[in-house]
Amino acid sequence: MSTKNDLFLRTARGEAVERPPVWLMRQAGRILPQYRAIRNRLSGFKELVETPELAAEVTIQPVDELGVDAAIIFSDILVIPEAMGLPYEMVEKRGPLFPQVIGSEADIKALKSGAFAAADLQYVYDAVALTRKQLDGRVPLIGFSGAPWTLLAYMVEGSGSKTFSKAKKLLYTNPGLAHQLLEKISETIIAYLKLKVQSGVQLVQIFDSWAGILSPEQYREFALPYIRAICEGITEVPVTVFSKGAWFVYEDLGQLDCQVIGLDWNTPPEVARQWVGDGKVLQGNLDPCQLYAAPEVIEKAAIKMLERFGRKHIANLGHGVYPDTPLEGVRAYVDTVKAYRYK
Amino acid sequence: MSTKNDLFLRTARGEAVERPPVWLMRQAGRILPQYRAIRNRLSGFKELVETPELAAEVTIQPVDELGVDAAIIFSDILVIPEAMGLPYEMVEKRGPLFPQVIGSEADIKALKSGAFAAADLQYVYDAVALTRKQLDGRVPLIGFSGAPWTLLAYMVEGSGSKTFSKAKKLLYTNPGLAHQLLEKISETIIAYLKLKVQSGVQLVQIFDSWAGILSPEQYREFALPYIRAICEGITEVPVTVFSKGAWFVYEDLGQLDCQVIGLDWNTPPEVARQWVGDGKVLQGNLDPCQLYAAPEVIEKAAIKMLERFGRKHIANLGHGVYPDTPLEGVRAYVDTVKAYRYK
Repeated sequence: MSTKNDLFLRTARGEAVERPPVWLMRQAGRILPQYRAIRNRLSGFKELVETPELAAEVTIQPVDELGVDAAIIFSDILVIPEAMGLPYEMVEKRGPLFPQVIGSEADIKALKSGAFAAADLQYVYDAVALTRKQLDGRVPLIGFSGAPWTLLAYMVEGSGSKTFSKAKKLLYTNPGLAHQLLEKISETIIAYLKLKVQSGVQLVQIFDSWAGILSPEQYREFALPYIRAICEGITEVPVTVFSKGAWFVYEDLGQLDCQVIGLDWNTPPEVARQWVGDGKVLQGNLDPCQLYAAPEVIEKAAIKMLERFGRKHIANLGHGVYPDTPLEGVRAYVDTVKAYRYK
Repeated sequence: MSTKNDLFLRTARGEAVERPPVWLMRQAGRILPQYRAIRNRLSGFKELVETPELAAEVTIQPVDELGVDAAIIFSDILVIPEAMGLPYEMVEKRGPLFPQVIGSEADIKALKSGAFAAADLQYVYDAVALTRKQLDGRVPLIGFSGAPWTLLAYMVEGSGSKTFSKAKKLLYTNPGLAHQLLEKISETIIAYLKLKVQSGVQLVQIFDSWAGILSPEQYREFALPYIRAICEGITEVPVTVFSKGAWFVYEDLGQLDCQVIGLDWNTPPEVARQWVGDGKVLQGNLDPCQLYAAPEVIEKAAIKMLERFGRKHIANLGHGVYPDTPLEGVRAYVDTVKAYRYK
């Protein structure tokens, strides 16, 4: 099945294109009335994640409604810990919660991993296959995973946190145990992403949402080697690495065997380009709060951003779109990028 | 009254010293059993802040117990919004909460500001005067304030937040209103810090705790000019600016009329020095989670950090010490710095 709008994939592969493609992290979500309508008649967030027909439906909504250049499969980064044996709950207005956490070597030994764990996530692969079928080649489909450090952070901390001090405490007090856990998580991520690719995703993105709370030394010891292994393990499709807040290791990220580097909104495009080098495509990075502004203000900000990035750029936000963002703001951004042409 | 251990002030003024001074953000707090004993018999956090005898007592505890080279007056950054007419509550395990928030021009007009607002904080000035008396010159006393943007963030958002999207929304949708509010906050901060200096603090530190969630453009428009005004307004004592997460404007911070720049733990000392220039003293920046490690591990990490900073350095953490940090870890850090000598 050929992809009719393959601008996103051509850009990710480094080909010369006429304009940057655009999509938004969390585009399948509460910003869309169609999403809220479905979500409101369900018992909870996990029902949506675990029901392939519903996941496919909300994945495609932003393609219909906003005309973005890529879809991203609706799911959650915490399906991996769950498949490894650590179930999560999604508590309304509080976020994720793990009733059990990892605290000892015995806990780690009890976890499933690799292909054995990944096999438990059939509902994701079914959702991917169904979405590809229903998209019918309109735009490419992105798959994703949390990065090993970010997943460890939730599995040890048990919930979101401003400091993730319990998770970081493990790195400082028992680095060997942390590496054992990261090893098992990484094997599972690779097996999971390979099955997602087999089911139809055409690029994978690694979300290291909590990269920015590590010191540079810790990032190089506990995060980077495992991301590198994933990049080297996934050879079938392009890979995007989004390490939020990790400006201090952008030179290292530039050396990864991946095609795209995601940027948060703090990072000036020129600085990122200098650190990452010319080899990678950059993705980002409008401040999600910019979309609260009036459409004409957003248009101006978007064009300024596009000109600062220049070529080898996938337009996105510097973080997931916030649930209360006005749809007209989102449209103003997407439409501005789509009307733009490189000189 | 002369200060017997004036190492901290000599370093802040840029004089050549034999070793870096050391103190910790949040050193007067839950890490100390003496603090917990006092706190547990009070009705709440605010009683401690508002009772000069108690505030003085907990301010001095870390000098007695840890032997740090400076004391910092026990207080809260949110006393300023309260003095301006916006009372805060401190909710156990949740953090600060403002029952009313700022949403309109009328709200801003209703706020008190400048010397008129600062006059309401007599309990702080009394605590400072009493602490200076009780310290009897053992170590210098630091005063502090939240930065204008960080205080605006709480006054508009109403509580802590991962994104402060309501506060940032104001900057994007009504920049004029944001500047009106920042103007009133800044006037109040300057008046407040001057009264603190008159009461006895010997250096003031500006905490811009939420600097890191602004884009570089927003930081330059909504944060930096007001911090500059404070630095220019406070000429009586040295000023430290700690803009957490604001790596992207360190070159601008280097141009401020202040003596010390605080660094978070993400920032490599060599990078900060290059960006800030040679004119400033740098303060920081061990990861607070490093203090969970064994004392011998902490000692090694501390010495490595001291060697990377070299001279013109005040040893501290990259963030406030976390409440569950073992006292032996804190001691290991303080003692290592105190035993260190520049070659």
